[in-house]
Amino acid sequence: MLIPDLRAEVLEANLEIVRRGLVLYTFGNASGYDAREGLVAIKPSGVPFERLRPEDMVVTDLSGKIVEGTLRPSSDLDTHLEIYRYFRGVHGVVHTHSTHATAFAQAGREIPCLGTTHADYFHGPVPVTAPLAEAEIRSEYELNTGRAIVRRFRDLDPLSHPGVLVASHGPFAWGRNPSQAAMHAVLMEEIARIASLTLALKPDAAPLPQALHDEHFLRKHGPQARYGQG
Amino acid sequence: MLIPDLRAEVLEANLEIVRRGLVLYTFGNASGYDAREGLVAIKPSGVPFERLRPEDMVVTDLSGKIVEGTLRPSSDLDTHLEIYRYFRGVHGVVHTHSTHATAFAQAGREIPCLGTTHADYFHGPVPVTAPLAEAEIRSEYELNTGRAIVRRFRDLDPLSHPGVLVASHGPFAWGRNPSQAAMHAVLMEEIARIASLTLALKPDAAPLPQALHDEHFLRKHGPQARYGQG
Amino acid sequence: MLIPDLRAEVLEANLEIVRRGLVLYTFGNASGYDAREGLVAIKPSGVPFERLRPEDMVVTDLSGKIVEGTLRPSSDLDTHLEIYRYFRGVHGVVHTHSTHATAFAQAGREIPCLGTTHADYFHGPVPVTAPLAEAEIRSEYELNTGRAIVRRFRDLDPLSHPGVLVASHGPFAWGRNPSQAAMHAVLMEEIARIASLTLALKPDAAPLPQALHDEHFLRKHGPQARYGQG
Amino acid sequence: MLIPDLRAEVLEANLEIVRRGLVLYTFGNASGYDAREGLVAIKPSGVPFERLRPEDMVVTDLSGKIVEGTLRPSSDLDTHLEIYRYFRGVHGVVHTHSTHATAFAQAGREIPCLGTTHADYFHGPVPVTAPLAEAEIRSEYELNTGRAIVRRFRDLDPLSHPGVLVASHGPFAWGRNPSQAAMHAVLMEEIARIASLTLALKPDAAPLPQALHDEHFLRKHGPQARYGQG
Repeated sequence: MLIPDLRAEVLEANLEIVRRGLVLYTFGNASGYDAREGLVAIKPSGVPFERLRPEDMVVTDLSGKIVEGTLRPSSDLDTHLEIYRYFRGVHGVVHTHSTHATAFAQAGREIPCLGTTHADYFHGPVPVTAPLAEAEIRSEYELNTGRAIVRRFRDLDPLSHPGVLVASHGPFAWGRNPSQAAMHAVLMEEIARIASLTLALKPDAAPLPQALHDEHFLRKHGPQARYGQG
Repeated sequence: MLIPDLRAEVLEANLEIVRRGLVLYTFGNASGYDAREGLVAIKPSGVPFERLRPEDMVVTDLSGKIVEGTLRPSSDLDTHLEIYRYFRGVHGVVHTHSTHATAFAQAGREIPCLGTTHADYFHGPVPVTAPLAEAEIRSEYELNTGRAIVRRFRDLDPLSHPGVLVASHGPFAWGRNPSQAAMHAVLMEEIARIASLTLALKPDAAPLPQALHDEHFLRKHGPQARYGQG
Repeated sequence: MLIPDLRAEVLEANLEIVRRGLVLYTFGNASGYDAREGLVAIKPSGVPFERLRPEDMVVTDLSGKIVEGTLRPSSDLDTHLEIYRYFRGVHGVVHTHSTHATAFAQAGREIPCLGTTHADYFHGPVPVTAPLAEAEIRSEYELNTGRAIVRRFRDLDPLSHPGVLVASHGPFAWGRNPSQAAMHAVLMEEIARIASLTLALKPDAAPLPQALHDEHFLRKHGPQARYGQG
Repeated sequence: MLIPDLRAEVLEANLEIVRRGLVLYTFGNASGYDAREGLVAIKPSGVPFERLRPEDMVVTDLSGKIVEGTLRPSSDLDTHLEIYRYFRGVHGVVHTHSTHATAFAQAGREIPCLGTTHADYFHGPVPVTAPLAEAEIRSEYELNTGRAIVRRFRDLDPLSHPGVLVASHGPFAWGRNPSQAAMHAVLMEEIARIASLTLALKPDAAPLPQALHDEHFLRKHGPQARYGQG
């Protein structure tokens, strides 16, 4: 069996988003990318999470060709692949319909950075993609969703903005591995929830001052990080 | 004992809506319809869910005559029966007072389709019935509730709009079998919850563009479906 | 030990409001009244629920004199007693600070009857008391809270309106026995929650038409009731 | 091992805020202060709560010098220390990013005292700190956060206002010991939640009348307290 470790990690990321309450039925999927082998492992489509085993993960190459596996891959595969093709250093992707992040996506609003909880993990607002044109929906919809994400990140660093809201759809999160991608999906849901409550209390809440944003983000990321056990 | 398999399925649908948090005390009921036998199995009225056994289900014909069972059927029986009489292909009905769907019903607002989570299961907004006239309330209330549902669907396909909000009351959901009806009840609650949060963030949120709505609904339903394991 | 059955029922009602998520720490209390003996059993003050045993319940007469028990009674005892002295047929009282009902109490708003979930158990809005005068707060506060409740019910039947919001404080619920009082406390929380969500969707939502309100309330209560197993 | 009892109490306070749902991942920390020994025990930085053992707590003196322990202390240590240096009688501090309290902090709004649930534990609104100047963020950020808290309390008694919202960040709570600090963190989250719901129902809700505020606070605190078993 190819890439057994990545299969196990991808399975674990899929189970993690269920345990954290981000997934109803089969509305979510996680994948991982092994850059050395050029292979992606992803959840099969529509299979209940509680029945998933490592060997059920579908292995494809970066073009989407199935290399190993008898099940159909997640219908969102082409979105995941586009992310792996363009976002260097990203080796895990998670898609959910988590409640509060999806509400921001449906409202077509980015999640503004209103506090340090957000600044600890996203070095700016959580961006939202532009709507797809009708032709982009009718043909290669999932691939075009990936393209809209990549376009949105033309001037953004995916590793310091580890997620996006696809307009009218829901959140995609990513990271250096599947487990980090799952953590970013969990964080997006919580910062969306706190942002909703903040905006109800203060509809014109201003974004965090840049100095405070930088302080918190850089306390946890990059060469000056001083959080954790180093 | 008549229709033992359907009894078991109906019991399971009743338990599922409890496990999913849609039911407080005895505020909900599920039924199933065996078209070949012309028989309906439904939860008995006011019996705690945790004590229900398959043999407690009440079996009636389509006119509501009890064919088997010593308990009184759910007081909403006549609403269920009207649905089975008129909605061809519907073999399961679930009624709950789930929190967010009930709030939309109490507000007399349909649930607009604001995102793909909704579009995956409802091919349009979740409709709301017209209020009953006073005479319809005073006599044959439950039957008239069913009639209001059927009237609301004069120009709608029940299988692509698998649920409704009864104004000032709460949601009814249905499907090809009791288990699918329960799943649609769970989905209605979640899409109502996300819609509430979306409308708080953007009170004038526009419905999903039709092309995107179609893409998502038809990705999961009908001859072009490509979701799941086929 | 006096009134052992009532002690057990009161303990069970106290545990039920904890299990249902209505109680944080020790913010809540249930009592029961044995009209034949003229005795009340109530939770002791500030004792963690998980340690309560039937013998810890404090037994008093209707004037508040402790008849049996070594612990101090709930500090809300005088409110409970006033309810038992004036509301004929009420033999259980429950007080909580449950989140959504408390929000209505803090807003000084009654819970309007916006749907059938409410109408099934309250034959009208859930009333809110008038604020206490400063002198009523400074002396005999708990008794005066009870008096404010009784005054609010001058023209209301406590058995068809089984609860009240004490302004700026929180809900009291009651019933024919402690278990029914606990159920009414749970229902008040849920109808407050649905009402909050309804008012967010439709700030000027109108109360349920009287005919529908009557239909639902009388379907479950009084001589015409046809809900349950009779 | 130094101060073993305090280590155990601090560990327990850290676990309590997790059990109560106030903590996502490692976003929170509790500490305790032994005034006789002049020593503080605090959670190590970024270590998952479920792996914490008493011996993992980091022991420092009041200046922040590590006296015992091989792990790095919580990155918020300097904020905790400033509180212990200035708030006499405070021997436990807890910091969380709990959802509703954080929303108030992000909105830069104090939590007004809108009801008795709040008045039972805070003898006034929950205050919010002034924003930090840019220079205060760039250098000694955590210490300056503590200084902003201390400044905010120039005219307030920390023992009758056992917590604060740090603007754009989140809540800090404290108490006479770590366990009481944890309880105050839990209460801040719940009163923030009820206040949010109250303000949605009544945006101009007035604070509790002073007499009622005093009655409730003094019923539980100080020489006239009559709550609990004395």
